[in-house]
Amino acid sequence: MSPEWIERQKPPRLERRLAFEDYEGTRHFLEQAAELSEHSGIHPDISFGRTYVNITLHAEEGAQALSQAQRDFARALDTLAPTQEDA
Amino acid sequence: MSPEWIERQKPPRLERRLAFEDYEGTRHFLEQAAELSEHSGIHPDISFGRTYVNITLHAEEGAQALSQAQRDFARALDTLAPTQEDA
Repeated sequence: MSPEWIERQKPPRLERRLAFEDYEGTRHFLEQAAELSEHSGIHPDISFGRTYVNITLHAEEGAQALSQAQRDFARALDTLAPTQEDA
Repeated sequence: MSPEWIERQKPPRLERRLAFEDYEGTRHFLEQAAELSEHSGIHPDISFGRTYVNITLHAEEGAQALSQAQRDFARALDTLAPTQEDA
């Protein structure tokens, strides 16, 4: 998993911020992430604007830690992230 | 403009929360909103999860109020919102 992910506790979650050069890049990433959510059934909390996306993966209700499936989802998002985040 | 919009000051902004029955509805709304942003060049701050979308339209840098174009954007989003918000 990319070192860009920040793991926090209380509540247990993974957070990552991505920056994009333009809205086109932001929108393309969000569409791919939506596909991933549709297939995996994992729905992070996402906030975005023209050239940024913040992702928060919360542990499931009552769980003390993130599941393997959520960590795999985070890794899958890493493959979609812009390689050179220099927005 | 729908009464669901809340206008706030400091900083001047319009906020609205939408609820959806399922992720498919959420995703469809977000795709249509993205089209609107692409054509209008107006990019609200949006946060979403599986069945909710929060929209914030901030006044432009240095402006004391929202522009007519931003209010028109809010009205356009109203036409995309689910009519029966009973998620």
